[in-house]
Amino acid sequence: MTSRVLIKDLSALADGPVTVSGWVDTVRDQKKVQFIVLRDESGAAQLVNPALRALPVTDAEAGTVALEGEELAAAEARLATTEAISDLANGSFITVTGQLKQDERVKLGGLEVKIESLTVVSEAIAETPIATDSGLDKRMDWRFLDLRHPKQNLIFKIQTTFLHAMREYWVDNDFIEIQTPKLMASASESRAELFEVEYFEGKAYLAQSPQFYKQMAQSAGFGKIFEVGPAFRADHSFTSRHATEFTSVDTEISWIDSHEDVMNLHEELLVAGFTAVKAKHGDAIKELFDVEITVPSRPFPRIPLAEAKQIVAERGYEIPRADDDMDPEGERQISAYVAEKLGHEFVFITDYASSIRPFYHMRHEGDPSLTNSYDLLFNGTEISTGAQREHRIDVLVAQAEDKGMDPEELGTYLDFFRYGVPPHGGFGMGLARVLMLMLHQASIREVTYLFRGPTRLEP
Amino acid sequence: MTSRVLIKDLSALADGPVTVSGWVDTVRDQKKVQFIVLRDESGAAQLVNPALRALPVTDAEAGTVALEGEELAAAEARLATTEAISDLANGSFITVTGQLKQDERVKLGGLEVKIESLTVVSEAIAETPIATDSGLDKRMDWRFLDLRHPKQNLIFKIQTTFLHAMREYWVDNDFIEIQTPKLMASASESRAELFEVEYFEGKAYLAQSPQFYKQMAQSAGFGKIFEVGPAFRADHSFTSRHATEFTSVDTEISWIDSHEDVMNLHEELLVAGFTAVKAKHGDAIKELFDVEITVPSRPFPRIPLAEAKQIVAERGYEIPRADDDMDPEGERQISAYVAEKLGHEFVFITDYASSIRPFYHMRHEGDPSLTNSYDLLFNGTEISTGAQREHRIDVLVAQAEDKGMDPEELGTYLDFFRYGVPPHGGFGMGLARVLMLMLHQASIREVTYLFRGPTRLEP
Repeated sequence: MTSRVLIKDLSALADGPVTVSGWVDTVRDQKKVQFIVLRDESGAAQLVNPALRALPVTDAEAGTVALEGEELAAAEARLATTEAISDLANGSFITVTGQLKQDERVKLGGLEVKIESLTVVSEAIAETPIATDSGLDKRMDWRFLDLRHPKQNLIFKIQTTFLHAMREYWVDNDFIEIQTPKLMASASESRAELFEVEYFEGKAYLAQSPQFYKQMAQSAGFGKIFEVGPAFRADHSFTSRHATEFTSVDTEISWIDSHEDVMNLHEELLVAGFTAVKAKHGDAIKELFDVEITVPSRPFPRIPLAEAKQIVAERGYEIPRADDDMDPEGERQISAYVAEKLGHEFVFITDYASSIRPFYHMRHEGDPSLTNSYDLLFNGTEISTGAQREHRIDVLVAQAEDKGMDPEELGTYLDFFRYGVPPHGGFGMGLARVLMLMLHQASIREVTYLFRGPTRLEP
Repeated sequence: MTSRVLIKDLSALADGPVTVSGWVDTVRDQKKVQFIVLRDESGAAQLVNPALRALPVTDAEAGTVALEGEELAAAEARLATTEAISDLANGSFITVTGQLKQDERVKLGGLEVKIESLTVVSEAIAETPIATDSGLDKRMDWRFLDLRHPKQNLIFKIQTTFLHAMREYWVDNDFIEIQTPKLMASASESRAELFEVEYFEGKAYLAQSPQFYKQMAQSAGFGKIFEVGPAFRADHSFTSRHATEFTSVDTEISWIDSHEDVMNLHEELLVAGFTAVKAKHGDAIKELFDVEITVPSRPFPRIPLAEAKQIVAERGYEIPRADDDMDPEGERQISAYVAEKLGHEFVFITDYASSIRPFYHMRHEGDPSLTNSYDLLFNGTEISTGAQREHRIDVLVAQAEDKGMDPEELGTYLDFFRYGVPPHGGFGMGLARVLMLMLHQASIREVTYLFRGPTRLEP
């Protein structure tokens, strides 16, 4: 590996020689002194070079150089470095060796590096196609440049920490990680939002969720499983919350009594994730996003859907839907209520009507119009759906027929239940939604490495 | 949650009342005593029931029952339990409450549970469609039943441990996790093995690898990244090593000097993974697979391809290929040589010819016929390809043209290099191949949750 010091580690070093590598954030090319702000994956630092614009001459008219030998070579090197810096395009990757000096007068990190030698490792085109005030769509066209900004970089460090904390919870609690196939012979959710794949002489479909296959793990006796992977929806909507490909966080457990067990697991995972994010990135998030991360207190509030709708109605908002569901404004309203009254950023809306839930959600023992299910809202937006699943084959088939489905179409899915399956449930959670709402961003596009939408397949 | 004791925890308990839940592995329904082997995700235990086939009668002819009151009720319950056990189908999920007795005469785990009550939670069809000696294809048809076998279950516990150990290495070393899109506007590797997706009014393609997007992260200044996710190849082959969808383990790092840095990272990750697997599952692997896990010693042997081919030739095997590549038998031969001479299960074959490597592999400084690349072989089979990437845009374009490619087709990929990118490299590794070879399995189908091949999309 190139022997370099990460910029974040410079502050702990004594004054002396160092080598740093990264890309040029900005250059201030003044007549007598040149400044480079160098950025790497860990931070930014100021590099300084006393400019030498011409070799000193004894006789200006004759142009006789006043130096010779080693002194001349050194001056020529300084001249070359000065010219190289004047020519530097923002974004170029460079390696610099120089003298580190801790100096609290320097605003950026209280230190600077006086340049002794500079190598341009990879030159950038001088004109940068995006600026900090470019529109989101333009920034997405040049996502690899957009991601160089410290805020964007931090988002993916946060994502790494968040996912790892959840995985540690899962592994510590004996969950098995599965990788379910994304190529399927039939739909996993609804035929309406299905991508079709040319599959040799036939057709395949992209999994809209790992739903069937995480249930299969319960039939297989795996007990507790998790998966973090892509899911695909041929959804033509252009909202800030939708993508045609997204990262789904999924888990499923056996031997539950009801969806209450799933909600408890959900709380534990989110507390683990938020605790780790706050500990590792809390200060940086405050600085770059002006957001104070709150580790949610347990239990999260739970409000049955019917009651939530009544509360929203009492706040003066009438949900303009023909069915029993909430709408995005209703979700914002009930979340605002919970924030005001209960001081919580999360709320489980429970007991959704069977009419608006998939056939595989278990219905209430005494009231088949309601399901053992929930949506989890975070800062006003749905991030997840969870439920106890119907594991009794006869009931499951009846519920599918009740939804107007042909059980034949469910193919091998129903087999999972014919050879025994314990009571089970789980949830699927959109990773980008969590990050968007955690960091108070306006769109999942800001927190997705490379967004995919109906008109966006590049870069 | 159902309050139950996991079977693996029974051995640490004192004799007394317990509740266990799981599925019926086998029933031995003898006249006087019934045995159930109950299995859950943690193990198997023997349940025993002294059969009561009929209520005791005082007068056999008249059928007068000899009991009354509580005794009668108890006897009727035992009768019902006996009948329930006689009717039990293998695979049914049950919950049993009874008296635990540690008894070293019991072969299975040195304990048994005397049944007091038994609830059939989910009944299985009596006829199981597969047996332990069923063929692989048949077992895959009924994968959820196949996965109930302890060996299959252990595979996914091993996979969980292996992946988590690598992720811990990555996170501890400040790698950023990325989720790259699987929907692309163009090919990521070769147009020959590309799945086409109907994408609204146009077409999309499934990513054959995250290659372009993990390189993009280097241009974005992420420094070090990793991803574990699906990759797709429209490959019509039916070998034991190929699938149309597989889990790819990917990592990429900046500021390398050569592929040697990538190989060092590769070694560290594998040592982390094998160490964790041996510590957590070594005994179980020995017992169920009769395999002794060896944590590989560092450095792994490195042999340039040309030398490897010479060694193989000297062993009397002539590689029947027109190009410069190895073939599977050649890989087995060189691995056998390494095992014999160097006592190592792994070997890096390095410096592949440019003619058989993709255009984006960096070529030797002094000899453009060779690349800064390697394949990693494990127990005779390739599990991974790694390389330093060409980061100089002019060289990259020339190499693409040299391969007969039209740089226009590379679209936004080339942009990643136009705005600066540090020297970088990485590898992609097939997760299933590692597990197959680690556990001495004959096919990746044995170690894939749900295999996908040209004629296999279900379940």
